[in-house]
Amino acid sequence: MNTASSVISSTKVDGTNVYNPGGEKLGSIESLMIDKISGQVRYAIMEFGGFLGMGTDRYPLPWNTLKYDVNQQGYVVSLDQEQLRQGPKYSSDTAPEYTDDYGRRVYDYYGVPWV
Amino acid sequence: MNTASSVISSTKVDGTNVYNPGGEKLGSIESLMIDKISGQVRYAIMEFGGFLGMGTDRYPLPWNTLKYDVNQQGYVVSLDQEQLRQGPKYSSDTAPEYTDDYGRRVYDYYGVPWV
Repeated sequence: MNTASSVISSTKVDGTNVYNPGGEKLGSIESLMIDKISGQVRYAIMEFGGFLGMGTDRYPLPWNTLKYDVNQQGYVVSLDQEQLRQGPKYSSDTAPEYTDDYGRRVYDYYGVPWV
Repeated sequence: MNTASSVISSTKVDGTNVYNPGGEKLGSIESLMIDKISGQVRYAIMEFGGFLGMGTDRYPLPWNTLKYDVNQQGYVVSLDQEQLRQGPKYSSDTAPEYTDDYGRRVYDYYGVPWV
């Protein structure tokens, strides 16, 4: 990966592992949710658990909670497993309506300003 | 697709067809290039030509040149094939450095302000 570049392909983000600062794997990025009008990434959807994509839990994370770590070749978020477990989530077959209210709750939980 | 929602999954964008206003297919979205820091989609990469993903030409398009058309179930851009042919492009095995200079040239070509 060319770390000098200021952009990254969505195809490289999808599937990338997510770790906590202690190096424990929390999950992996399943997809990105993008604001249709502005083109801003609203959430990186991390998935965790399940088997072959079935029954996984999905955690919408504000983009800027993810920091890419070159050594781990994955994203690091400053969350332990317990914080994450209590965070907003849904199962892979029951995606929420991504309303602004929902977004504010997600951003609030992670202490990120909703703009 | 839930058109009431203000967000769309990157997995739904990838592979979506792109048409001109006359309904001619120009290509399809191969991936999105995202600013690593801000999470802003800088380009939707449209691919065109080639065979089974080899030898395709790729056209970086500013996100807001794409308007989703519910009837065509694809994006419409206000370009004819000739405008597109002369636009910034690269072959699938020679991706450019996505510098700001490159970005400004792309945005200039499509008349979109670079911010």
